[in-house]
Amino acid sequence: MTRGSAPRRARRGNTGIRQSPWRRLVNPYEPVGVLSTDQVEAIHEASLGILEELGIEFLLPEALDHLRRAGADVAAGGPLVRFDRGLVAEAVAKAPGRFTLHARNPARNLEVGGNAIAFACVGSAPNASDIDGGRRPGNRRDFENLVRLGQALDSVHAFGGYPVEPIDLPAATRHLDCLHAFITLGDKVYRPYALGAVRIADAIAMTRIARGLSPERLQEEPSLYTNINVNSPRRIDGPMLAGVMEMARWNQPVVVTPFTLAGAMSPASLAGSLAQQNAEALAGIAFCQILRPGMPVVYGGFTSNVDMRTGAPAFGTPEYARAALAGGQLARRYGLPYRSSNANAANAVDAQAAYESQASLWSAVMGHANLVMHAAGWMEGGLVASFEKMVLDAELLQAMAAFLEPIKVDDDTLALDAQREIAPGGHFFGAAHTLQRYETAFYAPLVSDWRNNETWREAGSPDAARHANRIWKQLLKEYQPPALDAAIRDELDAYVARRKREGDVAMG
Amino acid sequence: MTRGSAPRRARRGNTGIRQSPWRRLVNPYEPVGVLSTDQVEAIHEASLGILEELGIEFLLPEALDHLRRAGADVAAGGPLVRFDRGLVAEAVAKAPGRFTLHARNPARNLEVGGNAIAFACVGSAPNASDIDGGRRPGNRRDFENLVRLGQALDSVHAFGGYPVEPIDLPAATRHLDCLHAFITLGDKVYRPYALGAVRIADAIAMTRIARGLSPERLQEEPSLYTNINVNSPRRIDGPMLAGVMEMARWNQPVVVTPFTLAGAMSPASLAGSLAQQNAEALAGIAFCQILRPGMPVVYGGFTSNVDMRTGAPAFGTPEYARAALAGGQLARRYGLPYRSSNANAANAVDAQAAYESQASLWSAVMGHANLVMHAAGWMEGGLVASFEKMVLDAELLQAMAAFLEPIKVDDDTLALDAQREIAPGGHFFGAAHTLQRYETAFYAPLVSDWRNNETWREAGSPDAARHANRIWKQLLKEYQPPALDAAIRDELDAYVARRKREGDVAMG
Repeated sequence: MTRGSAPRRARRGNTGIRQSPWRRLVNPYEPVGVLSTDQVEAIHEASLGILEELGIEFLLPEALDHLRRAGADVAAGGPLVRFDRGLVAEAVAKAPGRFTLHARNPARNLEVGGNAIAFACVGSAPNASDIDGGRRPGNRRDFENLVRLGQALDSVHAFGGYPVEPIDLPAATRHLDCLHAFITLGDKVYRPYALGAVRIADAIAMTRIARGLSPERLQEEPSLYTNINVNSPRRIDGPMLAGVMEMARWNQPVVVTPFTLAGAMSPASLAGSLAQQNAEALAGIAFCQILRPGMPVVYGGFTSNVDMRTGAPAFGTPEYARAALAGGQLARRYGLPYRSSNANAANAVDAQAAYESQASLWSAVMGHANLVMHAAGWMEGGLVASFEKMVLDAELLQAMAAFLEPIKVDDDTLALDAQREIAPGGHFFGAAHTLQRYETAFYAPLVSDWRNNETWREAGSPDAARHANRIWKQLLKEYQPPALDAAIRDELDAYVARRKREGDVAMG
Repeated sequence: MTRGSAPRRARRGNTGIRQSPWRRLVNPYEPVGVLSTDQVEAIHEASLGILEELGIEFLLPEALDHLRRAGADVAAGGPLVRFDRGLVAEAVAKAPGRFTLHARNPARNLEVGGNAIAFACVGSAPNASDIDGGRRPGNRRDFENLVRLGQALDSVHAFGGYPVEPIDLPAATRHLDCLHAFITLGDKVYRPYALGAVRIADAIAMTRIARGLSPERLQEEPSLYTNINVNSPRRIDGPMLAGVMEMARWNQPVVVTPFTLAGAMSPASLAGSLAQQNAEALAGIAFCQILRPGMPVVYGGFTSNVDMRTGAPAFGTPEYARAALAGGQLARRYGLPYRSSNANAANAVDAQAAYESQASLWSAVMGHANLVMHAAGWMEGGLVASFEKMVLDAELLQAMAAFLEPIKVDDDTLALDAQREIAPGGHFFGAAHTLQRYETAFYAPLVSDWRNNETWREAGSPDAARHANRIWKQLLKEYQPPALDAAIRDELDAYVARRKREGDVAMG
């Protein structure tokens, strides 16, 4: 068959970007395990050994008080906390296996846990990048455009933090502008930062305004989430702990993600890094459950390694992929929701970016991650949020969503009538069975260019990054903010204005 | 951590390309299934219905004679053959579940079946391409250089046919030059084409010379393999059947791969295309087993779809990935080795090429393919063999090889001593455990560039395709033909010269 020679030729319209529709995802396939049951237990045991013998530093006196009262072995004056295995097991067992994250638009609510999967876009990059403007420090304009893009991309289920850090906004009140942008430019779930209690308290207040919730109702309906990174090895910083305590006060979900880059922040072996990841994640989760039994938490896995020749972090590698799958096994051992990522270390939106991301994404999905953070837009090991990578990843995400649709097998799809209609050596283009379903039979790509080589060259030989560039511009051009009640908008504006007048936000 | 700031900075040498070493692979993980057991049976039943009611055309009178004698229902005058299910089941059950493919260098022997995986490089592209020279029709120089590259890449286990068709060689004797090149420029298993009996007979003769085998010994030791594509729907061409008959005479392996592009060569549904794939594959395999019970065969899966809007074939898509996984389930149902591919439809060595290839490769591996054809170098849905893609895919393949190494969990890798050595918030770079293993702890990439952005930009911002370009040139520069006994070389030369003197090779 000649490529591109089919009778029914249709083109993507000049206006409008064709995307797969928004939908919540459920993974229908069995998870892939890379550890035997005995190996899972050995890592579990080693992690309990770390918690018992060596402990974890909690750099917040108030946190130490809670831990001491719960029976943990807090060193005189802190900050080292040792946990006996009974305490860990008892606390972790109180965590729910799944919960619902409520968005201000109920159509955007997400399940977290079980076989559900949600994709959250890039968070916390210090730099933004696009082909036209190059790489630059994060700023408010890029922040807002990336929020708009995350809202516009139907394969993105949630925001995963500030897509880029808007350093042109004052640090003390930046969170107010950012939360305001999340709520007014989007209607998907968002993630404030656990950088002290005050920032979380502001996020809680603004979320209550956005959703019109009483304090009681908010505690019944998780409506935002945060992620804390353990400052690996074996240290959790004070501002994060203060943020966690505020989240616990409101029963809002906390993802606990150790930052175990093997060879740097953890031992130069996968088993050792996974044992440390597990110890640190369990410690953080146990702390949450001590604060508020039953509060929603997520087990975060982020184990990768550094290139031992240069110290550069590596992502989407064989180590990364196996660790992502093993992390899922560990999370399931405790019945906890699991967080993984779509990570890569590429400097350009090139083949490396794609193969590293695809390996990360496949291992996240095969490992039954429930929350895939940095799922769209993350580059350079997290140093850059890229506009083109956002779109490229959206292609990966919507393709993965289609991959997760089970194959339908029935008389209609087995199509024996079509076989009867078409003679050997014939062509199914004209079969009645084909004509009935030709519009929707197969996945329609966002970025992939399947034109034949001649047509493609006549079009200027656009590569995938170039297509992505065109697409994000078009999406921003067409972007419309989601509906928001004017009274809510006013109340949010007033809240931000008042809090800015009140001045500095302390880290605590 | 600042990227690239580690104490131990080392660079890839100026000479020599760092590759993971050659090794045979075993998949230690459970296969991923996308069909329920009931669905597998429904597809099986539908395929038997196709064979019973509609039949398959075998366009070779001699083949029809064999099938008639075996009890198949051959239409008067042919070429349509209907199979009752008992005949199919009985014949297919005679196929071995695994076999060894012997290379002229025993270190390159391959297992095919069970949990073994082998990667064969690009076959049958009409065009070659590289960044410097662009896209051009296949020719002898590119053919030979791609063979050299396939030999030099340690992650490539076998040749998968002519990497590019050398159309500047006379068609009638081309196979003699190509086989001569495979044997003298490489020492890995190769694949002659089943384009009539004579070409296969020449391949057999040259392989016997290369390996110094008696006719009897060759029949005990599969030493080459071929692939036949069903001319879907439901037709097998005469020259292929003649080639298969010659392969059967020598007990050499045949891969039977239906060409089921849903919406064109098969129904516009995955279930219908898989039923047709299964019917066609079983018909070809049954034919082999009727010719020679117990001869080695492989179940080939190549189901994908066309873009219904343009007719262009699509690869590495959600349909493709699910079909690749389902194909593995079907092959395992019959206890047959399974062939899949590393396919993509990209026009450039860009992000699309990488994400489509990576999805194809992951689904092949997760589906427990035993033979992954077109594993390196395939582009544009098979229209191009790309030098840069060869290298890019070698990165994917050697990363996959590392991914297939089970995580080692023992006291040494759990590294509790390293935890004891490093304080909370510390750094494992200097840990004794790290120093002991820093040279070999983690996967070392072939293409991936993990330098920090500044260093990368100072180096001219090379993307992955540019790195691949540098690497294949270096590999060709360093290429050394593998050792070959001078007497064998002389005998091969003489054989080719004699056969060329004898003149035209008929298709039969």
